[in-house]
Amino acid sequence: MSAAPVTARGTRTRAKLLAAAEVVFARYGYTEASIVRITEEAGVGQGTFYLYFSSKLEIFEELVDDLNRRVRHAMSEAAVGAATRLESERAGFRAFFAFTAEHPALYRIVREAEFVSPKALRSHYTRIVEGYISGLEDARGKGEVGDIDPTVAAWALMGIGEMIGMRWVLWGDGASAGDAAAGANADPTASGTSEVPDAVFDEMMRFIRRALAVAPEADGPKAQGQASADQTKPTLGRTQ
Amino acid sequence: MSAAPVTARGTRTRAKLLAAAEVVFARYGYTEASIVRITEEAGVGQGTFYLYFSSKLEIFEELVDDLNRRVRHAMSEAAVGAATRLESERAGFRAFFAFTAEHPALYRIVREAEFVSPKALRSHYTRIVEGYISGLEDARGKGEVGDIDPTVAAWALMGIGEMIGMRWVLWGDGASAGDAAAGANADPTASGTSEVPDAVFDEMMRFIRRALAVAPEADGPKAQGQASADQTKPTLGRTQ
Repeated sequence: MSAAPVTARGTRTRAKLLAAAEVVFARYGYTEASIVRITEEAGVGQGTFYLYFSSKLEIFEELVDDLNRRVRHAMSEAAVGAATRLESERAGFRAFFAFTAEHPALYRIVREAEFVSPKALRSHYTRIVEGYISGLEDARGKGEVGDIDPTVAAWALMGIGEMIGMRWVLWGDGASAGDAAAGANADPTASGTSEVPDAVFDEMMRFIRRALAVAPEADGPKAQGQASADQTKPTLGRTQ
Repeated sequence: MSAAPVTARGTRTRAKLLAAAEVVFARYGYTEASIVRITEEAGVGQGTFYLYFSSKLEIFEELVDDLNRRVRHAMSEAAVGAATRLESERAGFRAFFAFTAEHPALYRIVREAEFVSPKALRSHYTRIVEGYISGLEDARGKGEVGDIDPTVAAWALMGIGEMIGMRWVLWGDGASAGDAAAGANADPTASGTSEVPDAVFDEMMRFIRRALAVAPEADGPKAQGQASADQTKPTLGRTQ
């Protein structure tokens, strides 16, 4: 762990290096990435790098950690004020997909972490799941979800978010499931702009609502705003 | 695409090279893997390699393709004779986890495919999902599942399998969700022996049954064998 920068300028430089590392690791992969490429991308001298990080591995692990903290923050911020667990899930998934669209390198960097630093990969997933588990335990205690197992449900929910995000945010809406080659060579470092289409998002939320055994009556009176879409569609819509 | 071997011996040699490639790519990662390492692992001369594959990239893509075909075959074989979609899901997931335990390198190789050959990664997931979609469409037609969207449900189900498999098969039962460091340095190429604990598997299936809106009455009279475990536990169990 590098020393925390004590000045505002130091904090900015460190953040600039992390942002540059995100671009460089995503573009070149870990092996081809270098401290020179990172400092060039950041527009600082190589000597500056070593004020904040001791090695390529250290900045890589810090980057995974930083992205992890930011995606969890985005998800929990979004869920503030949600009246029910289902609203909270909805807001959290929206924030996760928005973060993925802004940081399409997240998937690539986290997956590469499996080779470079297995503990970074494991810690990334585990920390996301931990927040989920406690949220689901609370919700179960309040009767907002059924008598589910929070741990199994949390891993399942993370898997749903990961795959729906990969398919619709990273690959975009154009690639049909039957067209494996579509966009196959899309630049994985491109700034993501794809959103999960509303119909897909709504269907995913219905899938989750059923899976969490949210009692319809519990959802009814509390649901407002976005969540009300679920109420008004007792017959499930299709996306195709 | 390399020429298909025409003799039984050729078929065996090609399979031996693919098996060696699985070990080598998992152990060293793509960059550090080499044709020399693969032929040494396979116990054949380097010249033999070029009878079957033209490059490291070609054998890599063939390997992803081969693992993909085998995991899908294992899943569909397992599901033969399933009386309902839920039984079919159960058998398919069991086969997927068993394959993952036998081929722990699958995750690592597929994830690395994102860097080496984006189209291999995309094709891997898409082909698994395609089988799911048609199965779910059939099941919906027969009323064995609710009025779900087969495409969204298929991606969600694949995500559930991927994460539950990673957490319990690859990481093993020992690593608690609260212990991110446990087994962090476990050898990703080790022969996997971990099974998804029954309690976790059963809970996952209950999650899926609810998510797919399987009508309890439709599930009742048809469910037999393994599937009956669901019926006898109207109150959901816990794994912890």
